[in-house]
Amino acid sequence: MPFEPRAKVTFYNPHMVAALPSFPEAARAVYDYAAQLLAHAPRLERVPLQAATGRILARPIRADRDMPAFSRSTRDGFAVRAREASAGEWLHVRGSIRAGQAPAGPLPAVSAWEIMTGAAVPEGADAVAMLEHVESAHGENEASRIRLAHRRKLNGGENVVSAGAEAHAGEELVAAGSCLGCSQIAAAATCGYDKVDVFARPRVAILTTGDELVPVGETPGPSQIRNSNALMLAALVNQSGGDAWVLPVVRDESKAIASALQSAMQADMLLISGGVSAGKFDLVEPVLSQLGARFHFTGVRMQPGKPLVFGEIDRGGVVVPLFGLPGNPISSAATYLLFASAVLRGLAGVQQPAPHFAAAQLSREARGKPNLTRFIPSAVTSDPLSGELAQVAPVPWQGSGDLAAFARANCFIVVPEGTDRLAENDVARILPI
Amino acid sequence: MPFEPRAKVTFYNPHMVAALPSFPEAARAVYDYAAQLLAHAPRLERVPLQAATGRILARPIRADRDMPAFSRSTRDGFAVRAREASAGEWLHVRGSIRAGQAPAGPLPAVSAWEIMTGAAVPEGADAVAMLEHVESAHGENEASRIRLAHRRKLNGGENVVSAGAEAHAGEELVAAGSCLGCSQIAAAATCGYDKVDVFARPRVAILTTGDELVPVGETPGPSQIRNSNALMLAALVNQSGGDAWVLPVVRDESKAIASALQSAMQADMLLISGGVSAGKFDLVEPVLSQLGARFHFTGVRMQPGKPLVFGEIDRGGVVVPLFGLPGNPISSAATYLLFASAVLRGLAGVQQPAPHFAAAQLSREARGKPNLTRFIPSAVTSDPLSGELAQVAPVPWQGSGDLAAFARANCFIVVPEGTDRLAENDVARILPI
Repeated sequence: MPFEPRAKVTFYNPHMVAALPSFPEAARAVYDYAAQLLAHAPRLERVPLQAATGRILARPIRADRDMPAFSRSTRDGFAVRAREASAGEWLHVRGSIRAGQAPAGPLPAVSAWEIMTGAAVPEGADAVAMLEHVESAHGENEASRIRLAHRRKLNGGENVVSAGAEAHAGEELVAAGSCLGCSQIAAAATCGYDKVDVFARPRVAILTTGDELVPVGETPGPSQIRNSNALMLAALVNQSGGDAWVLPVVRDESKAIASALQSAMQADMLLISGGVSAGKFDLVEPVLSQLGARFHFTGVRMQPGKPLVFGEIDRGGVVVPLFGLPGNPISSAATYLLFASAVLRGLAGVQQPAPHFAAAQLSREARGKPNLTRFIPSAVTSDPLSGELAQVAPVPWQGSGDLAAFARANCFIVVPEGTDRLAENDVARILPI
Repeated sequence: MPFEPRAKVTFYNPHMVAALPSFPEAARAVYDYAAQLLAHAPRLERVPLQAATGRILARPIRADRDMPAFSRSTRDGFAVRAREASAGEWLHVRGSIRAGQAPAGPLPAVSAWEIMTGAAVPEGADAVAMLEHVESAHGENEASRIRLAHRRKLNGGENVVSAGAEAHAGEELVAAGSCLGCSQIAAAATCGYDKVDVFARPRVAILTTGDELVPVGETPGPSQIRNSNALMLAALVNQSGGDAWVLPVVRDESKAIASALQSAMQADMLLISGGVSAGKFDLVEPVLSQLGARFHFTGVRMQPGKPLVFGEIDRGGVVVPLFGLPGNPISSAATYLLFASAVLRGLAGVQQPAPHFAAAQLSREARGKPNLTRFIPSAVTSDPLSGELAQVAPVPWQGSGDLAAFARANCFIVVPEGTDRLAENDVARILPI
């Protein structure tokens, strides 16, 4: 077959690079798209709270009663009237209350009530003097007295959280669309949610294309490689809260690709790896077009990941978002993390589906390009005790197929388009892997 | 029972606060302890690669052949001799090779070989001219010629990754003790590991104490609260790679605590929530002492979390690390993340078990204390497109029992001991939740 330049080639003509959207333009389009997916209202599931970590809340968690439900001592010590205590008077200890006991009181004048952290403050008391801040005296008949240590003062309300000060009954504590981490789990538990309603995990089809690919368990021939992208993308999809569905590798042949795509469209979202570049066996885009797919963009001014395709396809009235990810694994991972993960989180019901960028200080410079946003595979380390910022440096790599280098990376340094270089010691934005 | 100051009270005397280790001292002790746990060699498990995400690698991943195994084109274009191409000569296209095909060649003089990304560079060629950088001409009989576009040059090696340039056969790509993320999964896949050896997850007993606690599914009486800590800690343990074992709540009574501890000691690690403060019903520490536990420290100059206890106990020759975490949920979560998680990761075989700190820019000031390192529950947000650093601000809170506030937090701002304040716009260290 003779070489025939395809119409598409001009698209990747470097003189035409400005015709592709910039990374911020493409990202804005994808994040807006992802945010409006919430309207789709994914299916709900009710799961036990202990199995809900990392799931996306479908109905808000609300306070079932005032928080705290009673005025609570935050210290071990003595419930008192702040005014009496601050006057330095000796106060008679009238009783003792521990966490879990019914509220005590009322507190007689010139008196104190021994109290433990978490216990209900007796009626009449308005503050708690910390155990460490009082002197005590023992009477003959085991009665005891306390007073504030020399020169100490106590304010009304000190070491007490009033009933309802944290939240009122019925108040929303965790919004629908939140990812349930330890603190949301704790809030749900304290409000009596032993089960929570979460969104079902979207099913994400992963279709890898390429004549060069053999399964991981097989020995590749000369010029062949193992299909690492499918398992890498499955790991990423599962980490983003999706349910990865890995289809068999499909050859670089239009009919095979069309048939595989028709299976894959049954999923909630479609990731296609490879076949989207400028080569003449990059057949994914033409086949998708034949199947009626619409494209939002078919390239982005970024490196790696320039040939990224973002579109959608209809399955009997249901819109299935799709990404054609470049076949090189680092390009695939970067474009997944920057774009596809946001759409997946949108489908999963996440309220803020865009990826989270972090910051770190460069321990080595990072070079940019005039017409591309760069995402440089890098390693970030933090000395937990130095007090210094996390340090990040690019890992030496041989291009976006270099899995040996990628295995040493844990983030990408972002070098915005037009930035010549980020210097050593600059604080840069990083995308965690 | 009359109030009797206990010997321990002096320990928490504010005048004695300097006798407690500082946060950096305590953290150093714990991180060193965690790092030496690797010597314990946890049990191995062999798991399918697709189920290995987040697990800790027990045996290194090594390259099974040179990477790449053949000189690989990184572009769609034409394999050429760089010298000939740079001279601007028309080169005869002698054939075409796509990814997965057996290596072609040798390349005749003044010739080019059409090549796709990922394909083996033919013998005799030393560079690949990108498709976008060449002009083509079609002969009458379908033969075609190409040359580099006007003024373009090509260097030897350009757009080619030589065999073995990424790694040599046998080279270690992922070290034992690494957590398997997407890039390590990809490296393992490309080297043919369809199963990997990982460390077994340590079993972590979670024992919550307190007369005030009722199970999450029950309605608390006045002055009672639901046991949110057990599920919160279970979520944290599972996230850190442990296998959480939640024991029933134990009352504030020495015999009950001793009996529960004897069950809990069967685990690989022990988390006890509550009962470690200065109150007279804080019985955990005395009971642990009776059972022969040794303590590394029983308090830290930090807020929240000052009453943290770190120790260990013997179970027939096996040393079981233990933490007594303060009962207030924010204190419990902070001390877990800062200390206990490191020991758990050490037990799990993680090579660098200390927690990872990140950086963010303060959008509101954060106040410090002279004698304590503060960890302030805060919310970090990043606008993925602004190009600005992640912004962080403390969440308003009513103290370390405020779960409503904690549910809005996703990190702690670290204010080192002796720092009066971190100002707005300062870049601070944060501990992600």
